[in-house]
Amino acid sequence: MTFKPIGVIHSPYFSKKAAPRQGRLAPEVASTIVVEAAFAAGLEDIETFSHIIVLFAFDQSRGWSDTVKTPWEEKRHGVFATRSSRRPNPIGMTVVKLIKRDGATLHVQGLDAFDGTPLLDLKPYVPKFDRIEEAGGGWLRAADGDGEVKK
Amino acid sequence: MTFKPIGVIHSPYFSKKAAPRQGRLAPEVASTIVVEAAFAAGLEDIETFSHIIVLFAFDQSRGWSDTVKTPWEEKRHGVFATRSSRRPNPIGMTVVKLIKRDGATLHVQGLDAFDGTPLLDLKPYVPKFDRIEEAGGGWLRAADGDGEVKK
Repeated sequence: MTFKPIGVIHSPYFSKKAAPRQGRLAPEVASTIVVEAAFAAGLEDIETFSHIIVLFAFDQSRGWSDTVKTPWEEKRHGVFATRSSRRPNPIGMTVVKLIKRDGATLHVQGLDAFDGTPLLDLKPYVPKFDRIEEAGGGWLRAADGDGEVKK
Repeated sequence: MTFKPIGVIHSPYFSKKAAPRQGRLAPEVASTIVVEAAFAAGLEDIETFSHIIVLFAFDQSRGWSDTVKTPWEEKRHGVFATRSSRRPNPIGMTVVKLIKRDGATLHVQGLDAFDGTPLLDLKPYVPKFDRIEEAGGGWLRAADGDGEVKK
Protein backbone atom coordinates (compact mmCIF):
# COMPACT_ATOMS: atom_id res chain seq x y z
CA MET A 1 0.00 0.00 0.00
CA THR A 2 1.32 3.40 -0.93
CA PHE A 3 0.47 6.46 1.10
CA LYS A 4 1.40 10.01 0.27
CA PRO A 5 1.88 13.04 2.48
CA ILE A 6 -1.16 15.33 2.44
CA GLY A 7 0.66 18.16 4.17
CA VAL A 8 3.46 18.99 6.57
CA ILE A 9 3.80 19.70 10.27
CA HIS A 10 5.74 22.71 11.47
CA SER A 11 6.83 22.53 15.09
CA PRO A 12 9.48 23.89 17.41
CA TYR A 13 10.96 20.39 17.69
CA PHE A 14 14.05 20.30 15.51
CA SER A 15 15.70 17.27 17.11
CA LYS A 16 14.79 14.16 19.02
CA LYS A 17 16.14 15.59 22.25
CA ALA A 18 13.88 18.59 22.03
CA ALA A 19 10.63 16.71 21.51
CA PRO A 20 8.47 15.55 24.40
CA ARG A 21 7.73 11.84 24.77
CA GLN A 22 4.12 12.65 24.07
CA GLY A 23 2.47 15.85 23.06
CA ARG A 24 0.10 15.70 26.02
CA LEU A 25 3.12 16.10 28.28
CA ALA A 26 3.79 19.51 26.72
CA PRO A 27 0.22 20.59 26.10
CA GLU A 28 0.90 24.29 25.56
CA VAL A 29 3.44 23.94 22.77
CA ALA A 30 2.09 25.27 19.50
CA SER A 31 2.56 23.68 16.09
CA THR A 32 0.97 24.29 12.73
CA ILE A 33 -0.31 21.75 10.25
CA VAL A 34 -0.29 22.91 6.65
CA VAL A 35 -2.52 20.82 4.40
CA GLU A 36 -1.75 20.74 0.69
CA ALA A 37 -4.09 22.82 -1.45
CA ALA A 38 -5.36 19.72 -3.24
CA PHE A 39 -6.83 18.43 0.03
CA ALA A 40 -7.87 21.68 1.68
CA ALA A 41 -11.57 21.25 0.88
CA GLY A 42 -11.56 18.18 3.10
CA LEU A 43 -11.03 20.41 6.14
CA GLU A 44 -14.53 21.88 6.04
CA ASP A 45 -16.08 21.79 9.52
CA ILE A 46 -13.00 20.34 11.21
CA GLU A 47 -12.89 23.60 13.15
CA THR A 48 -16.07 22.60 14.98
CA PHE A 49 -14.00 20.07 16.96
CA SER A 50 -11.97 21.06 20.00
CA HIS A 51 -9.50 18.21 19.48
CA ILE A 52 -8.32 16.27 16.45
CA ILE A 53 -6.35 13.10 15.83
CA VAL A 54 -3.19 13.62 13.79
CA LEU A 55 -1.64 10.70 11.90
CA PHE A 56 1.85 11.33 10.62
CA ALA A 57 4.86 9.48 9.28
CA PHE A 58 7.75 8.84 11.66
CA ASP A 59 10.10 9.70 8.81
CA GLN A 60 13.12 9.78 11.13
CA SER A 61 12.46 6.33 12.58
CA ARG A 62 15.57 4.14 12.74
CA GLY A 63 13.59 1.15 11.50
CA TRP A 64 11.50 -1.40 13.27
CA SER A 65 12.50 -3.25 16.40
CA ASP A 66 10.35 -5.92 18.05
CA THR A 67 11.09 -4.63 21.55
CA VAL A 68 12.12 -1.15 22.57
CA LYS A 69 13.44 0.66 25.60
CA THR A 70 11.27 3.58 26.61
CA PRO A 71 11.97 6.65 28.71
CA TRP A 72 9.64 5.28 31.38
CA GLU A 73 11.38 2.08 32.40
CA GLU A 74 14.60 0.08 32.05
CA LYS A 75 12.62 -2.98 30.99
CA ARG A 76 12.08 -3.40 27.27
CA HIS A 77 8.53 -3.78 25.96
CA GLY A 78 7.07 -5.04 22.71
CA VAL A 79 6.90 -2.13 20.27
CA PHE A 80 3.10 -2.49 19.95
CA ALA A 81 2.87 -1.96 23.71
CA THR A 82 4.59 1.41 23.26
CA ARG A 83 4.20 4.57 21.19
CA SER A 84 7.79 4.29 19.90
CA SER A 85 8.59 5.26 16.31
CA ARG A 86 10.32 1.92 15.71
CA ARG A 87 7.22 0.22 14.30
CA PRO A 88 6.92 -1.95 11.18
CA ASN A 89 4.69 0.76 9.70
CA PRO A 90 6.09 3.98 11.17
CA ILE A 91 2.82 5.83 11.69
CA GLY A 92 2.53 8.21 14.62
CA MET A 93 -0.73 9.25 16.23
CA THR A 94 -1.29 12.16 18.57
CA VAL A 95 -4.45 13.79 19.86
CA VAL A 96 -4.05 17.55 19.76
CA LYS A 97 -6.02 20.62 20.70
CA LEU A 98 -7.28 22.53 17.68
CA ILE A 99 -6.90 26.23 18.36
CA LYS A 100 -7.87 27.68 15.00
CA ARG A 101 -8.24 26.87 11.32
CA ASP A 102 -6.93 29.49 8.94
CA GLY A 103 -7.73 28.16 5.47
CA ALA A 104 -5.56 25.11 4.93
CA THR A 105 -3.47 25.81 8.05
CA LEU A 106 -4.42 24.38 11.42
CA HIS A 107 -3.02 25.86 14.59
CA VAL A 108 -2.76 23.18 17.26
CA GLN A 109 -1.32 22.57 20.70
CA GLY A 110 0.24 19.41 22.10
CA LEU A 111 1.61 17.89 18.91
CA ASP A 112 4.90 16.07 19.47
CA ALA A 113 6.03 15.65 15.85
CA PHE A 114 9.33 17.01 14.58
CA ASP A 115 9.40 20.04 12.34
CA GLY A 116 8.91 18.93 8.72
CA THR A 117 7.05 15.72 9.57
CA PRO A 118 4.85 14.45 6.72
CA LEU A 119 1.13 14.51 7.51
CA LEU A 120 -0.87 11.39 6.64
CA ASP A 121 -4.37 12.02 7.95
CA LEU A 122 -6.56 14.11 10.23
CA LYS A 123 -9.62 12.84 12.04
CA PRO A 124 -12.01 14.45 14.49
CA TYR A 125 -11.59 13.36 18.10
CA VAL A 126 -15.08 12.21 19.04
CA PRO A 127 -15.63 11.62 22.77
CA LYS A 128 -18.21 8.92 22.09
CA PHE A 129 -15.64 6.92 20.12
CA ASP A 130 -12.30 7.94 21.57
CA ARG A 131 -12.70 8.89 25.21
CA ILE A 132 -12.63 5.60 27.10
CA GLU A 133 -13.53 6.34 30.69
CA GLU A 134 -12.77 2.84 31.93
CA ALA A 135 -9.40 2.43 30.22
CA GLY A 136 -6.40 1.44 32.30
CA GLY A 137 -2.82 2.51 31.73
CA GLY A 138 -1.21 -0.92 31.36
CA TRP A 139 2.51 -0.98 32.07
CA LEU A 140 2.49 2.73 31.26
CA ARG A 141 0.49 3.52 34.40
CA ALA A 142 3.55 5.44 35.58
CA ALA A 143 3.08 7.85 32.72
CA ASP A 144 -0.43 8.43 33.93
CA GLY A 145 0.87 10.09 37.05
CA ASP A 146 2.76 13.32 36.83
CA GLY A 147 4.05 12.62 33.34
CA GLU A 148 7.64 12.92 34.49
CA VAL A 149 10.12 10.96 32.46
CA LYS A 150 11.65 8.22 34.61
CA LYS A 151 15.30 8.07 33.64
CA MET B 1 5.71 5.82 1.48
CA THR B 2 4.95 2.15 1.33
CA PHE B 3 3.22 0.39 4.18
CA LYS B 4 2.62 -3.33 4.43
CA PRO B 5 -0.04 -5.27 6.31
CA ILE B 6 1.30 -6.70 9.57
CA GLY B 7 -1.71 -8.93 10.09
CA VAL B 8 -5.39 -9.33 9.36
CA ILE B 9 -8.64 -8.59 11.14
CA HIS B 10 -11.35 -11.23 11.39
CA SER B 11 -14.77 -9.88 12.19
CA PRO B 12 -18.43 -10.74 11.76
CA TYR B 13 -18.79 -7.80 9.36
CA PHE B 14 -18.85 -9.20 5.86
CA SER B 15 -20.42 -6.21 4.14
CA LYS B 16 -20.75 -2.50 4.54
CA LYS B 17 -24.37 -2.76 5.57
CA ALA B 18 -23.51 -5.06 8.44
CA ALA B 19 -20.82 -2.92 10.03
CA PRO B 20 -21.60 -0.29 12.64
CA ARG B 21 -20.65 3.33 11.96
CA GLN B 22 -18.17 3.09 14.77
CA GLY B 23 -17.10 0.15 16.85
CA ARG B 24 -18.01 1.95 20.06
CA LEU B 25 -21.62 1.85 18.91
CA ALA B 26 -21.51 -1.97 18.99
CA PRO B 27 -19.16 -2.43 21.91
CA GLU B 28 -19.90 -6.10 22.56
CA VAL B 29 -19.12 -7.41 19.10
CA ALA B 30 -16.04 -9.64 19.11
CA SER B 31 -13.31 -9.63 16.48
CA THR B 32 -9.87 -11.16 16.34
CA ILE B 33 -6.65 -9.59 15.17
CA VAL B 34 -4.07 -12.04 13.88
CA VAL B 35 -0.58 -10.58 13.73
CA GLU B 36 1.90 -12.12 11.32
CA ALA B 37 4.52 -14.33 12.94
CA ALA B 38 7.32 -11.99 11.87
CA PHE B 39 5.85 -9.24 14.07
CA ALA B 40 4.51 -11.30 16.97
CA ALA B 41 7.39 -10.47 19.31
CA GLY B 42 6.27 -6.84 19.16
CA LEU B 43 3.12 -7.75 21.09
CA GLU B 44 4.92 -8.38 24.37
CA ASP B 45 3.12 -6.62 27.24
CA ILE B 46 0.29 -5.31 25.05
CA GLU B 47 -1.97 -7.50 27.17
CA THR B 48 -1.34 -5.21 30.14
CA PHE B 49 -3.59 -2.62 28.49
CA SER B 50 -7.36 -2.73 28.73
CA HIS B 51 -7.80 -0.88 25.42
CA ILE B 52 -5.71 -0.58 22.29
CA ILE B 53 -5.72 1.61 19.19
CA VAL B 54 -6.07 -0.30 15.94
CA LEU B 55 -4.89 1.25 12.68
CA PHE B 56 -6.05 -0.54 9.57
CA ALA B 57 -6.37 -0.03 5.84
CA PHE B 58 -9.79 0.88 4.46
CA ASP B 59 -9.12 -1.51 1.60
CA GLN B 60 -12.69 -1.29 0.36
CA SER B 61 -12.76 2.51 0.22
CA ARG B 62 -14.22 3.88 -2.98
CA GLY B 63 -11.48 6.49 -3.19
CA TRP B 64 -11.11 9.92 -1.72
CA SER B 65 -13.78 12.60 -1.71
CA ASP B 66 -13.25 16.07 -0.27
CA THR B 67 -16.70 16.14 1.31
CA VAL B 68 -18.83 13.21 2.37
CA LYS B 69 -22.34 12.51 3.49
CA THR B 70 -22.48 10.73 6.81
CA PRO B 71 -25.16 8.65 8.49
CA TRP B 72 -25.61 11.39 11.06
CA GLU B 73 -26.77 14.32 8.92
CA GLU B 74 -27.94 15.29 5.45
CA LYS B 75 -25.34 18.05 5.30
CA ARG B 76 -22.00 17.07 3.76
CA HIS B 77 -18.84 17.63 5.78
CA GLY B 78 -15.17 17.79 4.89
CA VAL B 79 -13.78 14.27 4.98
CA PHE B 80 -11.23 15.24 7.66
CA ALA B 81 -14.15 16.29 9.87
CA THR B 82 -15.51 12.73 9.62
CA ARG B 83 -14.32 9.16 10.16
CA SER B 84 -15.35 8.18 6.62
CA SER B 85 -13.20 5.73 4.64
CA ARG B 86 -13.04 8.14 1.69
CA ARG B 87 -9.77 9.74 2.79
CA PRO B 88 -6.69 10.53 0.67
CA ASN B 89 -4.79 7.97 2.76
CA PRO B 90 -7.44 5.38 3.62
CA ILE B 91 -6.31 4.60 7.17
CA GLY B 92 -8.95 3.69 9.74
CA MET B 93 -8.51 4.05 13.48
CA THR B 94 -10.63 2.48 16.18
CA VAL B 95 -10.13 2.17 19.92
CA VAL B 96 -11.08 -1.34 21.03
CA LYS B 97 -11.30 -3.29 24.24
CA LEU B 98 -8.59 -5.93 24.52
CA ILE B 99 -10.08 -9.07 26.00
CA LYS B 100 -7.18 -11.47 25.71
CA ARG B 101 -3.92 -12.11 23.91
CA ASP B 102 -3.35 -15.67 22.77
CA GLY B 103 0.12 -15.67 21.21
CA ALA B 104 -0.11 -13.60 18.06
CA THR B 105 -3.91 -13.42 18.18
CA LEU B 106 -5.71 -10.64 19.98
CA HIS B 107 -9.34 -11.02 21.00
CA VAL B 108 -11.02 -7.62 21.01
CA GLN B 109 -14.44 -6.02 21.31
CA GLY B 110 -15.78 -2.97 19.54
CA LEU B 111 -13.78 -3.13 16.32
CA ASP B 112 -15.75 -1.95 13.29
CA ALA B 113 -13.50 -3.23 10.49
CA PHE B 114 -14.71 -5.66 7.83
CA ASP B 115 -13.60 -9.26 7.88
CA GLY B 116 -10.27 -9.58 6.10
CA THR B 117 -9.16 -5.99 6.70
CA PRO B 118 -5.37 -5.49 6.55
CA LEU B 119 -3.86 -4.46 9.88
CA LEU B 120 -1.35 -1.58 9.82
CA ASP B 121 -0.47 -0.92 13.44
CA LEU B 122 -1.41 -1.45 17.07
CA LYS B 123 -0.78 1.04 19.84
CA PRO B 124 -1.63 1.05 23.52
CA TYR B 125 -4.50 3.35 24.51
CA VAL B 126 -2.96 5.49 27.24
CA PRO B 127 -5.43 7.58 29.23
CA LYS B 128 -2.83 10.27 29.87
CA PHE B 129 -2.37 10.76 26.12
CA ASP B 130 -5.67 9.72 24.60
CA ARG B 131 -8.49 10.38 27.03
CA ILE B 132 -9.34 14.05 26.61
CA GLU B 133 -11.77 14.99 29.33
CA GLU B 134 -12.45 18.46 27.97
CA ALA B 135 -13.01 17.45 24.33
CA GLY B 136 -16.18 18.52 22.59
CA GLY B 137 -18.05 16.60 19.93
CA GLY B 138 -17.99 19.19 17.13
CA TRP B 139 -20.70 18.76 14.53
CA LEU B 140 -20.82 15.11 15.61
CA ARG B 141 -22.27 16.06 18.98
CA ALA B 142 -25.39 14.16 17.91
CA ALA B 143 -23.36 10.96 17.86
CA ASP B 144 -22.37 11.65 21.42
CA GLY B 145 -25.92 11.13 22.57
CA ASP B 146 -27.55 7.74 22.26
CA GLY B 147 -25.44 6.71 19.30
CA GLU B 148 -28.51 6.27 17.14
CA VAL B 149 -27.95 6.74 13.45
CA LYS B 150 -29.89 9.77 12.26
CA LYS B 151 -31.24 8.85 8.83
